[in-house]
Amino acid sequence: MLAKNGKDTIVVGGGVAGCTAALYAKRYNLDVLLLEKTAPGGQVATAARIENYPGFPDGISGPELAERIRQQAENYGVPPQLAEVTGLEAHGDDWLLHTSQGDYVAATIIIAAGAHPRSLEVPGEEELRGAGVSYCATCDGFFFKDETVAVVGGGDAAIEEALYLSQLAARIYVIHRRDELRAQPYLQQQAFDQPNIQFIWDSVVTRIIGDEQVQALELHNKVSGEDSRLEVQGVFIAIGYVPATKWLGELLELRNGFIVTDQLMRTSQPGIFAAGDVRDTPLRQITTAVGDATIAARSAHRHIIG
Amino acid sequence: MLAKNGKDTIVVGGGVAGCTAALYAKRYNLDVLLLEKTAPGGQVATAARIENYPGFPDGISGPELAERIRQQAENYGVPPQLAEVTGLEAHGDDWLLHTSQGDYVAATIIIAAGAHPRSLEVPGEEELRGAGVSYCATCDGFFFKDETVAVVGGGDAAIEEALYLSQLAARIYVIHRRDELRAQPYLQQQAFDQPNIQFIWDSVVTRIIGDEQVQALELHNKVSGEDSRLEVQGVFIAIGYVPATKWLGELLELRNGFIVTDQLMRTSQPGIFAAGDVRDTPLRQITTAVGDATIAARSAHRHIIG
Repeated sequence: MLAKNGKDTIVVGGGVAGCTAALYAKRYNLDVLLLEKTAPGGQVATAARIENYPGFPDGISGPELAERIRQQAENYGVPPQLAEVTGLEAHGDDWLLHTSQGDYVAATIIIAAGAHPRSLEVPGEEELRGAGVSYCATCDGFFFKDETVAVVGGGDAAIEEALYLSQLAARIYVIHRRDELRAQPYLQQQAFDQPNIQFIWDSVVTRIIGDEQVQALELHNKVSGEDSRLEVQGVFIAIGYVPATKWLGELLELRNGFIVTDQLMRTSQPGIFAAGDVRDTPLRQITTAVGDATIAARSAHRHIIG
Repeated sequence: MLAKNGKDTIVVGGGVAGCTAALYAKRYNLDVLLLEKTAPGGQVATAARIENYPGFPDGISGPELAERIRQQAENYGVPPQLAEVTGLEAHGDDWLLHTSQGDYVAATIIIAAGAHPRSLEVPGEEELRGAGVSYCATCDGFFFKDETVAVVGGGDAAIEEALYLSQLAARIYVIHRRDELRAQPYLQQQAFDQPNIQFIWDSVVTRIIGDEQVQALELHNKVSGEDSRLEVQGVFIAIGYVPATKWLGELLELRNGFIVTDQLMRTSQPGIFAAGDVRDTPLRQITTAVGDATIAARSAHRHIIG
């Protein structure tokens, strides 16, 4: 049943998944509202170069791809609207969404709110954020030209950050808590082949030191038990993502904070769907985000036509 | 375990799903072979205009998108090789693939062989394909806003196409060879409730008429024996898809000919994965194909590293 006083569907999040869900929902001729908290684009907009999204054989910059997808949603008549969602609750057979711009009612909700980088939560991190502490090499790497920097993490994202920085910074230390990387072998090999990338294994950062700017890291080796100091001008933290799901409270079933769905992107509540990085999924890629989003839009349509 | 005398992975099919699986497998540092029966590109290469693949706000022609994705696979060092697969059988822990270019051994196989829409096989159908003759309302329905169209078929897919079109087109005729639908009752009821959907029973299309664009259909009523002409601007043929799975024999679990997988794209045989249109899936879109393919490549990698 169509919402009487509202939208057929509200898409929460203006990144790749959100814009794709919105344009597909529009193709299903649903009345759609697309909400984004800050600037549209999501995590993709922070990527330097994307080579693995099919259709761009020479690669494309993250901000450019994000803008093209935002433009595409706008061409379909669903430009992202700025509003921060703060809560969601049942409203008869519909859903009531609380936002910074007021309340909205919709028959279905597609949550594509994404995820943001996880922080180390060590002394100095918050104080020196933007003063040498960064979560995005693409955004901030330029400020560290010919300097010495550290990357914290061992997954794909960490190694991609290190590889990106290897073209800018003089020296990059990759600090990883284990003695081997989780990153894809293809990426690992590239990192091992870069003479200006060095690895510090079995180690964690315990403190970020600096007055106005980052000057050094305090490290703890988990195997030897030794503490040491590493002089760096910048530190890039790439240890995973935190899904934007706190605003949901206890409404939906979550796993490690990510929204649990079935193959049709249905959550534990009828009429609420999830797509992209916010979803509990083995893989967070642009390709999987657009696939998720398409299925979520179809499921929203099916829910509405009942 | 890596294949001793062969490849880590062979991808069967050089369409969107196949090329994407191949480039992702390459990113996982696998030794990959990509096989295509005829020209690379798959179903996408037959689409006139694609407006729903994120990243191309002004749309892109099917052949151009197919070529860009083929080029991207080639840039990754996996150009599609021409070979028709004819059989697949176990070979120890590996798989032995029979092709028109000889036999290949691989630790894993990713089947992205696609499917093609079943055609009516009437005069005008082939000539007007992409010029009013379509096999996918989700793909092309948008081009028929406020026009009069026909849907041919009586199953779930046909009625879903008609319902989708009912939100866009001015009038939809559903042409069915019998006097009742095969579609699920709840879909039928929805279609009967739509004032702009009309049914033409006991009838088959004998010819599609038009010069540059579809103008009309020639119909034959199988009960009365009468022939008639129906003016339409578009015709959506929804009489099923034919998956390219005959060469598999009894090897894999199929449903209506399509390969059954789990969420990780694993088939009923270990080391064999499926992605894209060949898979038993509710939705066959470019977006879902690239999502499937990414997950299949990851699963192949996981199978190999054990």
